[in-house]
Amino acid sequence: MYKVDLNSDIGESFGDYKMGLDENVAKHISSANIACGFHAGDPMVMEKTVEIALRENIAIGAHPGYPDLMGFGRREMKVSAKEAKNYIKYQIGALWAFTESRGVKLQHVKTHGAFYNMAAKDAVLAKAIAEAIYEVDKNLILVGLANSELTKAGNEVGLKVANEVFADRAYNSDGTLVSRNKEGAVIHDKGMAIARVLRMVKEGKVESITGEDIDIQADTICVHGDNPQAVEFVEEIRKTLEKEGIEIVPMGDFIK
Amino acid sequence: MYKVDLNSDIGESFGDYKMGLDENVAKHISSANIACGFHAGDPMVMEKTVEIALRENIAIGAHPGYPDLMGFGRREMKVSAKEAKNYIKYQIGALWAFTESRGVKLQHVKTHGAFYNMAAKDAVLAKAIAEAIYEVDKNLILVGLANSELTKAGNEVGLKVANEVFADRAYNSDGTLVSRNKEGAVIHDKGMAIARVLRMVKEGKVESITGEDIDIQADTICVHGDNPQAVEFVEEIRKTLEKEGIEIVPMGDFIK
Amino acid sequence: MYKVDLNSDIGESFGDYKMGLDENVAKHISSANIACGFHAGDPMVMEKTVEIALRENIAIGAHPGYPDLMGFGRREMKVSAKEAKNYIKYQIGALWAFTESRGVKLQHVKTHGAFYNMAAKDAVLAKAIAEAIYEVDKNLILVGLANSELTKAGNEVGLKVANEVFADRAYNSDGTLVSRNKEGAVIHDKGMAIARVLRMVKEGKVESITGEDIDIQADTICVHGDNPQAVEFVEEIRKTLEKEGIEIVPMGDFIK
Amino acid sequence: MYKVDLNSDIGESFGDYKMGLDENVAKHISSANIACGFHAGDPMVMEKTVEIALRENIAIGAHPGYPDLMGFGRREMKVSAKEAKNYIKYQIGALWAFTESRGVKLQHVKTHGAFYNMAAKDAVLAKAIAEAIYEVDKNLILVGLANSELTKAGNEVGLKVANEVFADRAYNSDGTLVSRNKEGAVIHDKGMAIARVLRMVKEGKVESITGEDIDIQADTICVHGDNPQAVEFVEEIRKTLEKEGIEIVPMGDFIK
Repeated sequence: MYKVDLNSDIGESFGDYKMGLDENVAKHISSANIACGFHAGDPMVMEKTVEIALRENIAIGAHPGYPDLMGFGRREMKVSAKEAKNYIKYQIGALWAFTESRGVKLQHVKTHGAFYNMAAKDAVLAKAIAEAIYEVDKNLILVGLANSELTKAGNEVGLKVANEVFADRAYNSDGTLVSRNKEGAVIHDKGMAIARVLRMVKEGKVESITGEDIDIQADTICVHGDNPQAVEFVEEIRKTLEKEGIEIVPMGDFIK
Repeated sequence: MYKVDLNSDIGESFGDYKMGLDENVAKHISSANIACGFHAGDPMVMEKTVEIALRENIAIGAHPGYPDLMGFGRREMKVSAKEAKNYIKYQIGALWAFTESRGVKLQHVKTHGAFYNMAAKDAVLAKAIAEAIYEVDKNLILVGLANSELTKAGNEVGLKVANEVFADRAYNSDGTLVSRNKEGAVIHDKGMAIARVLRMVKEGKVESITGEDIDIQADTICVHGDNPQAVEFVEEIRKTLEKEGIEIVPMGDFIK
Repeated sequence: MYKVDLNSDIGESFGDYKMGLDENVAKHISSANIACGFHAGDPMVMEKTVEIALRENIAIGAHPGYPDLMGFGRREMKVSAKEAKNYIKYQIGALWAFTESRGVKLQHVKTHGAFYNMAAKDAVLAKAIAEAIYEVDKNLILVGLANSELTKAGNEVGLKVANEVFADRAYNSDGTLVSRNKEGAVIHDKGMAIARVLRMVKEGKVESITGEDIDIQADTICVHGDNPQAVEFVEEIRKTLEKEGIEIVPMGDFIK
Repeated sequence: MYKVDLNSDIGESFGDYKMGLDENVAKHISSANIACGFHAGDPMVMEKTVEIALRENIAIGAHPGYPDLMGFGRREMKVSAKEAKNYIKYQIGALWAFTESRGVKLQHVKTHGAFYNMAAKDAVLAKAIAEAIYEVDKNLILVGLANSELTKAGNEVGLKVANEVFADRAYNSDGTLVSRNKEGAVIHDKGMAIARVLRMVKEGKVESITGEDIDIQADTICVHGDNPQAVEFVEEIRKTLEKEGIEIVPMGDFIK
């Protein structure tokens, strides 16, 4: 039987600032990436978000970002490998305190925004992230873009690795994501997006932007809870996947 | 045989800003309180400071502060009990990641500056701190001012508690510290300061500012590494204590 | 003819975080208090908010807060008079750069949250704020709670002062606000709130929570744009005031 | 008669963290670049640093940096042109409040660290910086690396521009600085460094790393006050320049 994980970033509020429909999207996903206070999130938000995840019985992962609250961690920053490593450790630990307080384990680590995108292409940065995770807890799963330097580094370091795919993004023929500023990078047709996900999960294939079929492993699908439409789309993906006989379970259930 | 712990705040640098003679004072103490990024410290500093502690074979504790880098955590802030609780958890976790990476355990938690002083007098805040520690790891020792609300809360919550004393501070007859803005609050005579410490450790007594002997339990003595004179004084305290047959060991060795 | 100002805090978004219906409330007020980056706001938000104010032809004031983004400047912090003074100057200057770029003048300064509430009662803090404003630009109007230490300090220092009143808050017989945690502190009946405002503007009187009439000068009324209901209420206040022959104009038009 | 300016970054302390021998170096320079709270500096430090500059009778400029206190503004960040523009405005304004309070004018703006280095090469970023300055106050002098995109943008926008040179850095044959990670990038021989400066000021020439003479305009020389040796070197440069008949004056005295 096919299994796949649905993951979403939650816990990205900060202080009095609310972001995301966390309680709604949490009902439809199997794994939550919880912000850790650098690009978003704060101790109050983290505690509350862990509660939401526990209530919905979904697995919890750390979602470390660059120290750039003003830019929401989306801006490229040239941090050294050592800085990257220590930023990852700090943030995993900060979230760990909240899961440990509730007697649950962290399942995974997925870096945020520019920290994720840069590591997909930069082998040195990717290795720093993988090593940081391994040194804190070698049982944590590293979530990285399928076919990227990040998943490669995770494998090399000896971590369990989850290959992440995007329903609404086009792929180049080498398996990398088409850059957002190129035409056709984002797939706006929902039906097509879902059909692509289905094929990625069942066949391990996706058609690239240039028309060839390429190999892709879909362990976890990135979804969003930013607005009601996004949440509806998550529900739709989930229902379609289940109807097609695909079980939605936390990545930790099948990545060994 | 008498045993006592010497503790000092270290790891209070931030980014390119250096503070404290960490490597020097670490040679003379038995327990290090490492800043966790709120009032001071950052991931790079925390990693480096854990290394210093390991090299000197001293025990490591978290030193959480208020989120006030500009005020170095020394300014009173009215945070709620829940905020206090979550701030403590976040910071313990952040440091834990660095000790866990090196295969060592955290020994204790000592709050910083205004977070320490306010909790000494405010039972609600004290309870929030004690509960936070207990929920993250009930084996951690809570360090609090002897005869304060903080140590009381630690005992009530069921934590191991270390009573902290100050060599250079005067005490009121109720066992609390004489406020710094009162005359005689600070003892400038080094010989007298050391003699007082000796008596606190051996007899569990100290003469209050009003002349009576009061009971005080001295599990750990707060010392400083801000400047060369401070470090020299730590060395002097240590030597005198050892000459008097008092063993300097991490608090975890005798607080059960 | 009667004149009064309607002021609201706007520009309290931060980075990707949105807060307040700024564009909507700006249509109904005469003066905007724009956050300056300490408790809320950032350079991008400030630029955008100045544009909104210019488009709606409303006057602009600085809205400095405590350096506490996580607590939205609502938590009491014990800052020194000198710190308060410099925090005010820094924030006025930061906003000035954006108004200066557009060729307009700053009209007023109103401190935010705990910085406002503490200064209403603390004469030392109030004086620090008033002096800071005076030293940067002695033509700026200081907005303070009517009958408070803050307005008093403004007068003493030689600033123009705007006495601020609240439509939905009860007053003590000494003219101070009834603390929010006391029963009856907030007036939920909109009709009554508007009637009270009318009387404050026209007669300079308000009935205190203990039943006596007290003197109060209403130069500017504090209104909110947090949600659609709040904006509607602002519109309602405005219409009622205008129907009653009260002109809504920026405080700078009548405070000399 | 030859005239040149000596500028140094000062006011880079933060909270309890001290950096730089500001009071010492201020005695030997003619222009001070004062940090504005993003990469370093805070309102207390800014006020104090303005006082130092006034006492030493040197000209004051804003020294805006990236919002990266943890990285001291030295790390590349990909900010948009609009973000750059608003960051510059905000920081100029913040410092302006302190000079305005003391009745003096700002003389110049020099961006810090990565904000300076990136703008030397990136025309879009350079233009954003120049426009920001022009919009806030078109009389401010833009300080940029001689022969860079930044000085070019300043000229295009219509600002007065100061060409900055470095005593201890090698130049490429196109007039740009040799990257620090290349051999020979830093000139360690003090005598040679001073001789090069003299020639730059008097002849407008410097020998490039590849041996050719290139044109360079030296309006202001960047010097440092990080440590006693650095301050001594500033004193030495100053004395030598003066002995050679070069007057050390604020750039505003000769850049029109």
